[in-house]
Parts: sequence; C-alpha cells; structure tokens
Amino acid sequence: MHIFDTTLRDGAQREGINLSVADKLTIARHLDDFGVGFIEGGWPGANPRDTEFFARAREEITFRHAQLVAFGATRRAGGSAADDLQVKALLDSGAPVVTLVAKAHDRHVELALRTTLDENLEMVRDTVSHLRAQGRRVFVDCEHFFDGYAANPAYAKAVVRAASEAGADVVVLCDTNGGMLPAQIQAVTATVLADTGARLGIHAQDDTGCAVANTLAAVDAGATHVQCTANGYGERVGNANLFPVVAALELKYGRTVLPEGALAEMTRISHAIAEVVNLTPSTHQPYVGVSAFAHKAGLHASAIKVDPDLYQHIDPELVGNRIRMLVSDMAGRASIELKGKELGIDLGGDRALVGRVVERVKERELAGYSYEAADASFELLLRDELRRGADGAGDAAPSRFFRVESWRAITENRPDGTHANEATVKLWAKDERLLATAEGNGPVNALDRALRVALERIYPELAKFALRDYKVRILEGRSGTDSTTRVLISTGDGDAEWSTVGVAENVIAASWHALEDAYTYGLLRAGVEPAE
Amino acid sequence: MHIFDTTLRDGAQREGINLSVADKLTIARHLDDFGVGFIEGGWPGANPRDTEFFARAREEITFRHAQLVAFGATRRAGGSAADDLQVKALLDSGAPVVTLVAKAHDRHVELALRTTLDENLEMVRDTVSHLRAQGRRVFVDCEHFFDGYAANPAYAKAVVRAASEAGADVVVLCDTNGGMLPAQIQAVTATVLADTGARLGIHAQDDTGCAVANTLAAVDAGATHVQCTANGYGERVGNANLFPVVAALELKYGRTVLPEGALAEMTRISHAIAEVVNLTPSTHQPYVGVSAFAHKAGLHASAIKVDPDLYQHIDPELVGNRIRMLVSDMAGRASIELKGKELGIDLGGDRALVGRVVERVKERELAGYSYEAADASFELLLRDELRRGADGAGDAAPSRFFRVESWRAITENRPDGTHANEATVKLWAKDERLLATAEGNGPVNALDRALRVALERIYPELAKFALRDYKVRILEGRSGTDSTTRVLISTGDGDAEWSTVGVAENVIAASWHALEDAYTYGLLRAGVEPAE
Repeated sequence: MHIFDTTLRDGAQREGINLSVADKLTIARHLDDFGVGFIEGGWPGANPRDTEFFARAREEITFRHAQLVAFGATRRAGGSAADDLQVKALLDSGAPVVTLVAKAHDRHVELALRTTLDENLEMVRDTVSHLRAQGRRVFVDCEHFFDGYAANPAYAKAVVRAASEAGADVVVLCDTNGGMLPAQIQAVTATVLADTGARLGIHAQDDTGCAVANTLAAVDAGATHVQCTANGYGERVGNANLFPVVAALELKYGRTVLPEGALAEMTRISHAIAEVVNLTPSTHQPYVGVSAFAHKAGLHASAIKVDPDLYQHIDPELVGNRIRMLVSDMAGRASIELKGKELGIDLGGDRALVGRVVERVKERELAGYSYEAADASFELLLRDELRRGADGAGDAAPSRFFRVESWRAITENRPDGTHANEATVKLWAKDERLLATAEGNGPVNALDRALRVALERIYPELAKFALRDYKVRILEGRSGTDSTTRVLISTGDGDAEWSTVGVAENVIAASWHALEDAYTYGLLRAGVEPAE
Repeated sequence: MHIFDTTLRDGAQREGINLSVADKLTIARHLDDFGVGFIEGGWPGANPRDTEFFARAREEITFRHAQLVAFGATRRAGGSAADDLQVKALLDSGAPVVTLVAKAHDRHVELALRTTLDENLEMVRDTVSHLRAQGRRVFVDCEHFFDGYAANPAYAKAVVRAASEAGADVVVLCDTNGGMLPAQIQAVTATVLADTGARLGIHAQDDTGCAVANTLAAVDAGATHVQCTANGYGERVGNANLFPVVAALELKYGRTVLPEGALAEMTRISHAIAEVVNLTPSTHQPYVGVSAFAHKAGLHASAIKVDPDLYQHIDPELVGNRIRMLVSDMAGRASIELKGKELGIDLGGDRALVGRVVERVKERELAGYSYEAADASFELLLRDELRRGADGAGDAAPSRFFRVESWRAITENRPDGTHANEATVKLWAKDERLLATAEGNGPVNALDRALRVALERIYPELAKFALRDYKVRILEGRSGTDSTTRVLISTGDGDAEWSTVGVAENVIAASWHALEDAYTYGLLRAGVEPAE
C-alpha cells in the first residue's frame, strides 16, 4: 500500500495557507518522520518557490522513509514530451518520482485542453514514456475521473490503459470536484480494476464530507495507493485527511502501512504541521484532536471509571493522544510526571510537588500559555517548583541570571518613509546595574539586541545564541487589538534548539517574556550557574 | 425518510458548548425553519434546564415542520415503567415523541447497568409498551449497537425485536463509540433489517471521520431514519453532520426530505446556529463553509471561466452558498477578472489593465502580501490601477483620505511591572496638519486610537469603525525576529466587515499599513469622497 502525501501541493491550495520554502522543508521532515512513502513537493517550473523547494530538499534533507515526488502535467497538445519545457522542469527537479496530471473526462479535454480525445491519449503515452525512458517512476493522476467515467466510461478507461501501458506504475482515480459518495467510488474502482488490470490509486476531495470513506471504499475495491494531505488541508473543503486514513488502515484493517512506532507520533505530527502552516489545530479532528477522547461528565464518565474501553473506539495512546475528562484538569498528574521523566526530572515520588505543577500549568493555560510547543518554558516552570522543595516554601537558591528593572521599545515611521526601531533595557545581574540601548529592524529585534549588549560581558555564552523562529498567535480573535497575544520563540546555540512561550496583552510584552525564558534556558543548558 | 436532529441533546455534549434555555429555543426555531422532521430537545427530568426547555417550547413555539422529541432511558432494573420517575418525566414533558436509549451490548448491560440480559429486554418491552399506552410515539436508540453486534449478534438483534414488538416505531442502531467504517455499518444494517423486519434508523458518531458516510451506508442498506446534529456538533469528535447528510439525500440521492426551498437556506441556518452556540462557523465545512466553493489555483480559474460546472460538484446556490475566487500568486488573469466581477468591477474589456493588476499582485505577494483573506486591500489595489486608466499613466483624481507624515509607538515596561503603550501620529488631511497622541493596551491599539483621534473631526464616519479581528503571521520562519511580518485586520462598521493586509519588516509597521487600508476602505464604503 502506497501512502502518498500531497500536503505540499494540494494541501497548499487551502484558503489561508501560504507556504514559504522553509515551511515546506519543515513539513517534509515531519512527513518523513511519520513514515509516508511519497511526498509530493509541488510543481517545479510552474512557480519559483516550488523549483527552489526541490533544489533545497535534495541538498538539505536525508529522507529516511519517503521519496520526493514532482507534480506536473502531460505535454502540450501537438508537441512532443522531449521538447516540452514544463516536462523538462520535472526532470530537472531531480525527484525520482513524477506524478503527471492527465485529463480523463472527455468534456474537459475539449473545453479546457481544447484538443481531441485521441491527442489527449497520445499526450499521456508520450509523456509517461519519455519520463520512464529518463529513469523516473511515474504515477498518473486521472483528473475528474469519476465524473468523466459517468459521462463516457469507455474514454475514461482508455486514459487509464494509455497510462498503464506506457509504463505508469500507478493510475490514480481522482474525484477532483469531490462530489462522489463511497458506494459510487467503490463500484467504479472495482469495474476499472477488472477492466484494465492497472494498479490503481485514489485521490478524494472532501466536498461531500466523505473523503476518508471514499478513500477506504477505493481500497475495499482494490486500490493500493492512497493520496492524502495532513489534517485534510486542500482546496475548497479539503482533501482526504492523511491521519484518519492511515489510522483506519493500521487499526481497523490491521495493515502495517507506517514504520514501527510512527502511529504513536500522529497527534504530535498533526499539531506540529498545523503550527507550521499557522492554523490552529482542529480540536475536533478524528484521532488527533484534543477533544477526540474528551468526555463530559455524566452517563459516560461513570462508565469510563468502570472500563475506559466502554466509551472509546481505540486506546488513544495508539495515536499519541489521550483521554480527557472535561470536568477535571487538562494537565493531569500522570502526564506531568511523564513529561518530567522525558526532561530527565523524576517527580514520581512527590505528590505535593506534582500537584503544584498541575495547578500552575492550569492557571497559566487559562491565561493563554501553551506548553505543548514550549518545552523549555515548561522545564523552567518545573525547575522553579522543584527548587521550592516538597513543601513549596523554599526559595533560597538563585534560579535566574538577571533581574529586569524596566525596558522600552520605540518604533518610529519617519517623514521619509523609513522606520527606526530602538530599545532600551535596564537589568541587574551579579549586583551590577546594566543599561543598554540597541536598534533593530523591529521592536522585538531591537529588544533582543539590547538584551545581548547588556548581558554579553557577564555571560559570554550568550554570543552563540540565535533566534531561529518566531510565531505570534492572537487569542480570542473577536476583540481586535484588545486581545491577548501568545508568542513562541525558538532559539539555537548551533548545537541544540529550544522553544519558549510568552503571553501578555500585547505582542511586545509577550515577546519579551519568551525572550527572557529563551536566554535563561540557554544559559542553564550551557552549564552556567544562576546568580539571581 | 425521517430527518431527526439531536443538536439540542447530543450536540450539546460537544466540548465548548453550553446552551441556555433561550439558546435551545432559538436553535429549535432554526431547525424547524430548515424543515427537519424531529427535534430531540433534551432529557426532561435529568436536568432542570431540559425540563424548562420542554415547558417553554410547548408554549412559545408553533412548529411548522418538526415534532418535539424527549430523550430518556428505559426504566430501572427490577421496577416497573408505570412507577418509574424518570419515565414519568418523559410523559410530563408533553413531547409527542420519546426516544428511549436501551443497552444492546451484552457487556454494557452487565458492567454499566449491572443487570441480567433478560431483565434488560424486559426493561425495553415494559417501557416502550407503557409509553405507547400513554399515546406516545416511541423510537428506541440501541446504544453501542455495532460493537454489541460484533460481540453477541443474537443478543443485539433480540433487543431490536423486543423494541419493535413492543411498539417502537423505529429502532435506531447507534455507533456510540464512533469506531465503525461504512462497509461494516452497511453489512450489519442489512442483516439486522433482514432478520428482524423492524424499521431501522442510524445514529453515527464521527470518531473515524466517516459519520456522514456511515449514515448514508445505513440508508443504502435500508435504514429510513437518520439522526444528525447541526454542524456535526457532538461528544468527542462529533456526530453525523445534518447538513451534508441532508444535501446528499436531496442532491445525490434525489430524495425530497426537506420542504420546498429549505435547502437554499442551509448555509444561512448553519452559520446562524454556530452563532447561537458561540462557535466560529467552520470555514471548511462541506456545502456551507465559506471556503466550500472557493478557488485558488490558476489552472482551475481559467477552466471556471469556460464553465463553472467543470470545477464544482453542485451549483452552490442550491445550498445558499456562492463561488469565491481567491487572489493568490497561483492565480492568473482569469481569476483576477472573476474577482473583479465579484467585487462589482468589470475588467473584462481591458487586457492591459488586468495585466498590470496581475503584475502588481505577483510583486506584492512576493514581498509577503496575501490577498486571499484581504478583499478590501485587493479592491483598493484594483481601484488604484483603474484610476490610472488603460495606459497606466493617469494619476489625477485623489484616492486617499489622509497622508502620513510620521508616526511613533512606544512600549515601556516600568520597574513596577506595569506596561505603558503610547502612540503619536502626524497626518495631513484636507490641507490640515493633524497631530494626536493616544494610549492603548498594546502599541497597535495605541496607534489605532491615535489615528482615530487625529481623523475623527474631519471624518466623523470613523466613529462607527471597530477592529474585529487581528492576525499576525511571521514569514520566512527560519530567521527569527529578522523576518518579514504580515498582519491581517478585520474591521466592521456594524453593518459590514472588511479585511485588509499589511506587510513590513516588523509587526508594528505591518499593522500600520493594514490599519491605513482598513480606514481608507471603510470611508470609501461609507460614500465619503477621497480628498488626497
């Protein structure tokens, strides 16, 4: 069974998604970690961003599981594949696999391609043969297959045969408009398989809300290649969602389609990809949503106490998710203990301490903090509570490297249209008052630089720290600029990377809190002793 | 075919939903407008809110299409239905129809009900007969039916027979844990129908992402009663979504299940119910999401100009939705023209003008702009180019309401830990120099306020504008705070809402640009003549 992901191409068509090359590389790494077999990276030659992606992916990523796939169209009508610039760009991408989109609906051939039905078949044969001769593995996406089959089944099947006979490894039946229901998909797929003998794949859009079921219906009928996108991102309503499709194949069909251990990473990877595309992870997504195994009090809660399997269709740990009772705390004691263990801090024996950490996490999450993507901030919180000791009273040993007296950031738009950003910080470290001013290309950058200028003499380890990523999320979006702001910062020292979170009523103050944590954690990591 | 809605009972189990009696009455009116046959209002007697709902619904609502349904359980083990207080509360609710939940899984009877399999059958018979004798129509929900059938098919069918023989009008097979796939639902439903002859219904949860397909699979197997919730609200992942189920039955199966004209109200009713439960309507919901008929790819846009049916599975007007063209760097001339038409600006005849707009959009999107979520900024760009005329030379008429001389925003963290945010703007409008300073809870809020203070005397229309939403996206995420920032702002005037975009090297400057566009567009909308 091929697990084929097209988040980077079809997923990027979703309204609100706009991926940079860096975003695409990050997502490709997550998908490879998850263990998909194929990652469709985009349409090289059609836009410069996709061309750059293939060049950089080749250099920067060593794939462990996946093969990179370039997407493109069959050659132009009346030309030859060998002379087609668009086809050449597919070869130039260096991708070992190419997906060619071909028209399979007679009306589209005539209205959109404006060529004859015979020439369209010849375009498929010529392009597939040419790519095969150049050593590429070829999949052919038959666009609008199911609508085309309804209108002219003989022609739709002729396209499948043309692709298969010319050397395509898989012919993918696409429900491009997404209007199909599972029974139709299953019947047509079974007939096409029987009549053509080609290896078949399925590409389903979610316009009827049935994309996952349509994908599985094709598998039931004999398809052995499923095209999906992470979190179901895609044009209009979206594509078949990779995660429930893979979970169904693994857990309901009992087929092994992922590497050992990968399924348990599914929830984390789903959320991580949502962060990269800057969309809030869907709370109600099957298997991976935070609500997917949440239970409200009442009828179910008492039964769950008897036996959790009475009210859940799978053990949530299989997909890296967990059960949540909505009346009780989100950050349960067990998960705090597990998290501590993961960070190398054993909390197992200390119930009072774990209880205090749970309370603090709950209180801070209520204020807008999110520790899921900010391990370093969570570890600082944990260490603060550890330092207080079992009874919560202790507070003797220093835990920080500096104290903040005040700071200020100014952004100015001058009459000539240029911007000036200036920040001043006033700090205390090792009994010394430190004052520094710096400029930057924005107020946060200026604050970051001023912080370094102030501290670098006392903590030379800071010189190695560099900001790697910076994300802003406005919470409670219905109140405009009056909202709470959460900032996530990733910082690196060339060796490791760590993430911190800050929350405040405005973006500058939130960034400052995340920066403070980032520097504190980095110095702890470097083995420096806290002085404050 | 029964269209049975359980938004008010099962839908209310969704994490984040908490309905008042007034909310429930409003939703019941919307569902009746939509034309569902049955509205399950809650569990009278189990909580005072539901008891009050039934009392008030009887007095306050004249249902045109729907019948009100009370939900409850079979009588207690060892008692009699006639003496059961919970059963009495169902009768007292005055609802003409009662849904009884019954256990159909042997293990649940023993572990959760703690009674014998025979007594459970007797509880079903006794309760159904009693309610029938009191003149109520009865539906029986067989909880965990499919899991129960897998474990003990004879017993699961015995429960169906007991309910049916005692006078239940419909026996509903429930996938309570939501773990089923369509093929399983279809096979079991067909067998149960053949073996029992009972009228069957289906109640599907969405834990595998297949609830809509599971519902339709049961219909394919002969079920004639579908239980759904508006927008798929429900426990954990949710329930089968009423809207795609009804749309499939009407548009794909060709069955009339709604009153004349109701389907075209579907988008409005879906959004209205989302407003009542205080959840943002899902943008990507099948049929009714604002993205459900949105097109981004240039490939598709040129084909849509030829014939919209090439790239949509139904005419969006059938469900009260509409086609939307998204302007993005994937878009070519065709989508710009279609977008112009959507905004009421005809660009059809002017190839040079469209070419210039395409170039400007490409250039700005390369700089980080994104117009797909910023219609108002795109319209301003379009109007700027229109004003220049066909040759691009004209620039005579004023197009803006103010000129910016300079602005400044200061964020300060004081030694006492409080923050101060202050902004100053210097503007020109109608030959007057305007200078204003204001404070806010963040630098952008302070800038927004200063802008209003400066302009409100000259443009009193501004008083009605309010910021509705604010989104920040850091582009090129691998370079920390040195990145480019994109800000999207939604502004409203109580009547309409519009979205603008700003891009700059820092968040304050980007916000400023989005604010400038927001105020300019709002004044144009209000019919004010540009003065600059």
